[in-house]
Amino acid sequence: MPFPDLIQPELGAYQSSVQIPADFAAFWEATIAEARAIGGAVSIVKADTTLRAVEAFDVTFPGFGGHPIKGWLVLPAQRSGKLPLVVQYLGYGGGRGFPHEQLHWAASGYAYFRMDTRGQGSGWSMGGTADPVGTTPSGPGMMTKGILDKNDYYYRRVFTDAVRAVDMLVAQDFVDATRIAVCGGSQGGGISLAVAGIDERVKAVMPDVPFLCDYRRALQKAGRDPYLEIVRFLAQHRDKKANVFEVLNYFDGVNFARRAKAAALFSVAVMDETCPPSTVYGAYNAYAGADKSIEEYEFNNHEGGQAFQDRAQMIWLAQRFS
Amino acid sequence: MPFPDLIQPELGAYQSSVQIPADFAAFWEATIAEARAIGGAVSIVKADTTLRAVEAFDVTFPGFGGHPIKGWLVLPAQRSGKLPLVVQYLGYGGGRGFPHEQLHWAASGYAYFRMDTRGQGSGWSMGGTADPVGTTPSGPGMMTKGILDKNDYYYRRVFTDAVRAVDMLVAQDFVDATRIAVCGGSQGGGISLAVAGIDERVKAVMPDVPFLCDYRRALQKAGRDPYLEIVRFLAQHRDKKANVFEVLNYFDGVNFARRAKAAALFSVAVMDETCPPSTVYGAYNAYAGADKSIEEYEFNNHEGGQAFQDRAQMIWLAQRFS
Amino acid sequence: MPFPDLIQPELGAYQSSVQIPADFAAFWEATIAEARAIGGAVSIVKADTTLRAVEAFDVTFPGFGGHPIKGWLVLPAQRSGKLPLVVQYLGYGGGRGFPHEQLHWAASGYAYFRMDTRGQGSGWSMGGTADPVGTTPSGPGMMTKGILDKNDYYYRRVFTDAVRAVDMLVAQDFVDATRIAVCGGSQGGGISLAVAGIDERVKAVMPDVPFLCDYRRALQKAGRDPYLEIVRFLAQHRDKKANVFEVLNYFDGVNFARRAKAAALFSVAVMDETCPPSTVYGAYNAYAGADKSIEEYEFNNHEGGQAFQDRAQMIWLAQRFS
Amino acid sequence: MPFPDLIQPELGAYQSSVQIPADFAAFWEATIAEARAIGGAVSIVKADTTLRAVEAFDVTFPGFGGHPIKGWLVLPAQRSGKLPLVVQYLGYGGGRGFPHEQLHWAASGYAYFRMDTRGQGSGWSMGGTADPVGTTPSGPGMMTKGILDKNDYYYRRVFTDAVRAVDMLVAQDFVDATRIAVCGGSQGGGISLAVAGIDERVKAVMPDVPFLCDYRRALQKAGRDPYLEIVRFLAQHRDKKANVFEVLNYFDGVNFARRAKAAALFSVAVMDETCPPSTVYGAYNAYAGADKSIEEYEFNNHEGGQAFQDRAQMIWLAQRFS
Amino acid sequence: MPFPDLIQPELGAYQSSVQIPADFAAFWEATIAEARAIGGAVSIVKADTTLRAVEAFDVTFPGFGGHPIKGWLVLPAQRSGKLPLVVQYLGYGGGRGFPHEQLHWAASGYAYFRMDTRGQGSGWSMGGTADPVGTTPSGPGMMTKGILDKNDYYYRRVFTDAVRAVDMLVAQDFVDATRIAVCGGSQGGGISLAVAGIDERVKAVMPDVPFLCDYRRALQKAGRDPYLEIVRFLAQHRDKKANVFEVLNYFDGVNFARRAKAAALFSVAVMDETCPPSTVYGAYNAYAGADKSIEEYEFNNHEGGQAFQDRAQMIWLAQRFS
Amino acid sequence: MPFPDLIQPELGAYQSSVQIPADFAAFWEATIAEARAIGGAVSIVKADTTLRAVEAFDVTFPGFGGHPIKGWLVLPAQRSGKLPLVVQYLGYGGGRGFPHEQLHWAASGYAYFRMDTRGQGSGWSMGGTADPVGTTPSGPGMMTKGILDKNDYYYRRVFTDAVRAVDMLVAQDFVDATRIAVCGGSQGGGISLAVAGIDERVKAVMPDVPFLCDYRRALQKAGRDPYLEIVRFLAQHRDKKANVFEVLNYFDGVNFARRAKAAALFSVAVMDETCPPSTVYGAYNAYAGADKSIEEYEFNNHEGGQAFQDRAQMIWLAQRFS
Repeated sequence: MPFPDLIQPELGAYQSSVQIPADFAAFWEATIAEARAIGGAVSIVKADTTLRAVEAFDVTFPGFGGHPIKGWLVLPAQRSGKLPLVVQYLGYGGGRGFPHEQLHWAASGYAYFRMDTRGQGSGWSMGGTADPVGTTPSGPGMMTKGILDKNDYYYRRVFTDAVRAVDMLVAQDFVDATRIAVCGGSQGGGISLAVAGIDERVKAVMPDVPFLCDYRRALQKAGRDPYLEIVRFLAQHRDKKANVFEVLNYFDGVNFARRAKAAALFSVAVMDETCPPSTVYGAYNAYAGADKSIEEYEFNNHEGGQAFQDRAQMIWLAQRFS
Repeated sequence: MPFPDLIQPELGAYQSSVQIPADFAAFWEATIAEARAIGGAVSIVKADTTLRAVEAFDVTFPGFGGHPIKGWLVLPAQRSGKLPLVVQYLGYGGGRGFPHEQLHWAASGYAYFRMDTRGQGSGWSMGGTADPVGTTPSGPGMMTKGILDKNDYYYRRVFTDAVRAVDMLVAQDFVDATRIAVCGGSQGGGISLAVAGIDERVKAVMPDVPFLCDYRRALQKAGRDPYLEIVRFLAQHRDKKANVFEVLNYFDGVNFARRAKAAALFSVAVMDETCPPSTVYGAYNAYAGADKSIEEYEFNNHEGGQAFQDRAQMIWLAQRFS
Repeated sequence: MPFPDLIQPELGAYQSSVQIPADFAAFWEATIAEARAIGGAVSIVKADTTLRAVEAFDVTFPGFGGHPIKGWLVLPAQRSGKLPLVVQYLGYGGGRGFPHEQLHWAASGYAYFRMDTRGQGSGWSMGGTADPVGTTPSGPGMMTKGILDKNDYYYRRVFTDAVRAVDMLVAQDFVDATRIAVCGGSQGGGISLAVAGIDERVKAVMPDVPFLCDYRRALQKAGRDPYLEIVRFLAQHRDKKANVFEVLNYFDGVNFARRAKAAALFSVAVMDETCPPSTVYGAYNAYAGADKSIEEYEFNNHEGGQAFQDRAQMIWLAQRFS
Repeated sequence: MPFPDLIQPELGAYQSSVQIPADFAAFWEATIAEARAIGGAVSIVKADTTLRAVEAFDVTFPGFGGHPIKGWLVLPAQRSGKLPLVVQYLGYGGGRGFPHEQLHWAASGYAYFRMDTRGQGSGWSMGGTADPVGTTPSGPGMMTKGILDKNDYYYRRVFTDAVRAVDMLVAQDFVDATRIAVCGGSQGGGISLAVAGIDERVKAVMPDVPFLCDYRRALQKAGRDPYLEIVRFLAQHRDKKANVFEVLNYFDGVNFARRAKAAALFSVAVMDETCPPSTVYGAYNAYAGADKSIEEYEFNNHEGGQAFQDRAQMIWLAQRFS
Repeated sequence: MPFPDLIQPELGAYQSSVQIPADFAAFWEATIAEARAIGGAVSIVKADTTLRAVEAFDVTFPGFGGHPIKGWLVLPAQRSGKLPLVVQYLGYGGGRGFPHEQLHWAASGYAYFRMDTRGQGSGWSMGGTADPVGTTPSGPGMMTKGILDKNDYYYRRVFTDAVRAVDMLVAQDFVDATRIAVCGGSQGGGISLAVAGIDERVKAVMPDVPFLCDYRRALQKAGRDPYLEIVRFLAQHRDKKANVFEVLNYFDGVNFARRAKAAALFSVAVMDETCPPSTVYGAYNAYAGADKSIEEYEFNNHEGGQAFQDRAQMIWLAQRFS
Repeated sequence: MPFPDLIQPELGAYQSSVQIPADFAAFWEATIAEARAIGGAVSIVKADTTLRAVEAFDVTFPGFGGHPIKGWLVLPAQRSGKLPLVVQYLGYGGGRGFPHEQLHWAASGYAYFRMDTRGQGSGWSMGGTADPVGTTPSGPGMMTKGILDKNDYYYRRVFTDAVRAVDMLVAQDFVDATRIAVCGGSQGGGISLAVAGIDERVKAVMPDVPFLCDYRRALQKAGRDPYLEIVRFLAQHRDKKANVFEVLNYFDGVNFARRAKAAALFSVAVMDETCPPSTVYGAYNAYAGADKSIEEYEFNNHEGGQAFQDRAQMIWLAQRFS
């Protein structure tokens, strides 16, 4: 297919025009504080696998509203002292799957945690975490659940879960709280950017072809779901356009980027029909941290860099956390 | 496309092998009783429209859990005495839309009520009814919400709302409780079949290309959503197949058909890729009521008979309710 | 899909460069005069339906060449004096269907007439009107029938039928000839625009996502039929490009708009792949009448505003005709 | 794609159940006689090309209703005595194109005539022949034009044109009236089969993946146009199914095959989604002539044998006409 | 989509009718012997990665014709004595990628080798191995390279490479030659089946949704590439059908299965459009080894069991190799 | 679909920015010299056909590496003296097919030669020529075979074959070496452009919608294969972008155009998704010969002008070679 968005050099120069609400920081501060106040129980149980070089644990921790959130924790079998931490959030529709998947971080000496996304986990891998909150009229998928009120919007709960995962992990004795990284592809990239924008404990963020950035432009340029879930919602709820975009400003990766300080390694794919590359540059160019770089994959669609990017992340993070 | 399922004469002879749980009737009796016990407020407000020959009302009534459910009530402007009632349920993804839509029942002298489907109303028309209940891990769409437990399954709430709509309407002084009909296309057909299988007050049911029938066969034959939502769920949750089908037996139109007694006018489309025709015959052939007939549209896909079927319904119902 | 045409603010500023032939007005004056001279019989027969609040009539009237054209006339059952009139033309491929469809105008107190489109009525609803005129070599569909000669072109006959419908209706004693509105979606929008450009008796026109405007640009921007019928014709008849565009100038909504004086309520959909939004603005910006406005649906494809637009039309027309 | 229809050995054993009307022969006899009675002028003009080894002529002859029909006649430049004749009819949507196309028959020593199909010639090649007869309500394409009356049906005119082409050609002094062959692919195959069933002067017929055979089964098995034009017509005109199939019996290749006596070389493609292979075998197995054979292309879709089949035809015909 | 092939119970009962050539065993014996006679150099070099719990090596070994073949060898960092071996072959189009991918076997204590497929490695992951042999006329892809001669056919080289990988690995001191397993998905499943049918040193084989089985049926049932590469080849080379199937018999997984003795764990997906499930059962039911079982994924397409199957393999193999 | 690339007037003004390597001419001079030095046998055998007005010959000649290349030579049966020559190269995936195809050049008095493309001939027609050279890791299709080294790249061999065909033909006594034309569509257009850029004996070149021009832009604008083969290769081999484009500069039609002097008749299709029209203008605008013109087909996709262009070529060439 023809290139679906801007190409270089216009692409790299793109500046997003997303508005940041005056109470953006206050909104998130209050949200996280509320979740912490509710609290909840943590459970970490050794998983039954054939793995020997690493150890896997089935973790449940309290997220937004104290709701139980699942994840896999994987540690090197041979370990001593406190380990640097990598928290990975997942792409849209996926779940944490099995502990034997994605072993490269643990095999490289990190404490590695892969968090379920509440209510998802039925699309490209399996999850085990419920979203006990209902929804106003919405279309199939998560993108429009509660989209008419910033307090009801689905991603308010998810981003809170993601920060609460860090809360749970820094409380473990095997984690070095000075070396915390978050990462993820697509939706996972969007979540990691949100965490970096909310939580200053995070020292490195690696958003890979991030989703959830520069929504208005994304709706104009995306050729595939899930951004189109919002298009279809607005195609029916023709009278709620202003309302929707007002809410989305509180959840826009561009706004989180404007507040983040961690070292950042982005990736972007120039042929990406799912997360249009200009929306990624919208977030990248707005990113406030000084140590930032971006890997560009010119001839890739939303798969982006895949194992190339994993390798780039491993090398980049080793340079910062070793 | 080639005909996607059985053709005649095999089609009309198809018998479903769906199992009916021993406590099927008890489950639904208890479910409806629980909703009635919770109760809730009814609101009926004249709508602001340019309509003169009919009057429209914006209705809210308590459904499952006492949750507020919306609908449009439309009455002939010129009326006297008690009116026969037609309750229409909606196809998947749609909402009640506007009161000026679908005026043929009210213009033919019926009290006509069009019920919102909770949490939907963002696909092909707009709704205004929330579903305040959350979900276990599920895929986009409603079909897999709470699918692992019969008490949590989404359609338990919807079918209860549908019966509660009848409760609300028979309590109105303009409704003739001896002449109650329910109808709907696709999902609306499936809901109307459920209501006919639960509620003996219903004297006529008109399921049009009904959805939610004979799930296991439907998953093998459907070529389009929304049955495929369950296929995709099982494609990830490979270990939950038995659990899912056990739950679905409580929500299968074949089982409701086995218990229904109202006069019935079905329709079926032989080229239907969404609701495979054999699954419709599965319900029709199981239908227990003595006065039953079916309109077959050989060269139609899921659109079925459209205005032909509306006309057939108007004539058929007039013969029974005049 | 990405937005397929201009977006705001460029969209609203678009000016069409369609040429208007010197004899444009003379051509249409002569065409209508010729049809009136031929004349023909009118038949208005009560239709057999279950409807009570409105009355429906099966109408046949003489169109172009005196050919019999069908339509449904629907009147409020309770009526007195002369009624304002709404004439609706149909989208491409459709037919007048059944009298119980689209009751909102009659239910709002208007005399309502829905005209068949000759030779169509087999696509998305059923019609009953023949087109007894043959064709030069052409592709499937109506768009290229007789396209090499302005006197042979299919829409010459259709636009004439549409004016002759008004002739027939203003001759009825229940019609108020000072309150005549024409409307329609897509092809029906294009026809209503033509009628407004030809016939000064029309006082209000409501073209909804109109088709048949700014053909040359439409061929460059449309992603779906029926504009592409002309593309495919020219793909074979590579030597007839100039001829075709010369003919089409006589049938272009932009040119009718330049001559129309009625109050106008347009609609446009920014994601419309069938009738590219710039071509609608091409007609709207050229529209000569002073009382004009346009409803824009940013996140809709060719379905446009649907029931939202119906409601907007009912309110808008009530303000002008009450 | 998976094989779309029967495979061997079931395929070759398929017997069509098409009914033959009692007045089938009389209908066609009267139709041809009527066209001959009307008559009309023949024009044969040398074409201006760069060709030297063959000579091309632009021909116009009177078809059904005396309407002018076009074709290209191509003769070997070096010729003497009377030549065997090959008349080719065209696939759906195409036109006669240019005289320099398809030279293999003339280059092999035949008088070769390629007939335009009235009203078509805008799909995959260009034609120049009008169809001056209008139509009842119909869908895009030719398949449903006049389909409600055997006297109005489009193919009544086409098949008559095809016989009248033979009339015109046998009247030329360079044609050997004892060696007449007709051929064509797809629609051309269907036409050639009709001519063989009507006109006993034809001594050889070569229907290549023929269309217009065993309509009812074709509608169930075809995955692509143009059979689907009839499906779409019946999807709207739900009340005219019996009428349509009654008319089509007069135009079914199976019925022409039952009456044909010429030597026949069919071809069939087992993966054909346009002309399902069982419908071709339906005609082939019904073919009454004793000298018949069929080339089967197992792994081809509707393209069938292409140059392989051309070569097979040239060899097969040379064995019969040399 | 509807289920594309047989369903249970017919599916499990399917018996392939593939013929086994009389010289099948001799052909493969000679082929392997020839490659061993040519020999070639082995290179094993430590790879530069961030991995610590495992060690990765970049391996080159001589395959068919002595051509250099690449692979990644990954060993547990903590190891002692001889390790059981898992050799994985890759799906069509993929390459060995990076050493940090697919760590679960090494992390479970196995010596793990992932072999490049010559000439591929440009589709879904990157490879580094050339195929220095040219081809007769063929279509895009590997399936038809040299398909007219069993000595030239592409998979003769690939299957030989696969056996030669085992040769190379059993010669290493860290490998326990009594515990050798081969596995792979799709093409990798087909290759592993071939190796199990040729090489008795293999004690366990885990073909996951295997490709390259029961070609003739596969061509009739597959809806997606790469089996369709052969369909397209035969669509042009219409005269070479017998030749092609005669050659393919030497490369059919059904025939390898008939000769294999290793313990076997198959998987099959009932909705698989790429490797039709009946072709997998064709191989499974023919499998000669006594210790065989199959995991069936009813609602999966070609992705099959993914991490579920990985887990099933890890548990199954541990039961046999611990 | 919307127009996929630039439209006029921007289209005609497009200038390619392809770089020409300093050793471009030397590279090709050496390549051709090497092939000539290897030499090889020529075979010309009368073909067995039913053709009489022309004579066909099955030709084999030595191409790159002396490898045997096939072609059909067709001569007018009536001929005297030396004939002007037309050499046609084929579109991607096709083969020389049968001698009875494409007779218009021979029937117009030319010696006509249609050359097979090595290793292809299995896509849209059948070829008989092997490519005995293997490949580095590559994707399906020819575009990426050997793409990392200019000496290994597939088209080095093809372009050499094409020049060697001219060598073979000018050595025949029936060929007039002062009247040599080369032509072809798509890939054949690209090859003919290469020959015109390498071989000064060529006096006329007719590249029809040429492929293999302005690769970098083509990858950004093409919507269909085969340019996308390179996109997919680079999507995996993310680290080889610079290498690939450096090699492609030696094979770019823009660079051949810059060196060509023959009279040229190009064609271009403005809706072409396979060979984007700007890339054709990139070559056309760079074309160095003084006698150049271009036929533009505005409403055509990659089929371009077809028989219109054949006719244009026949007239254009007759003006230059008569």
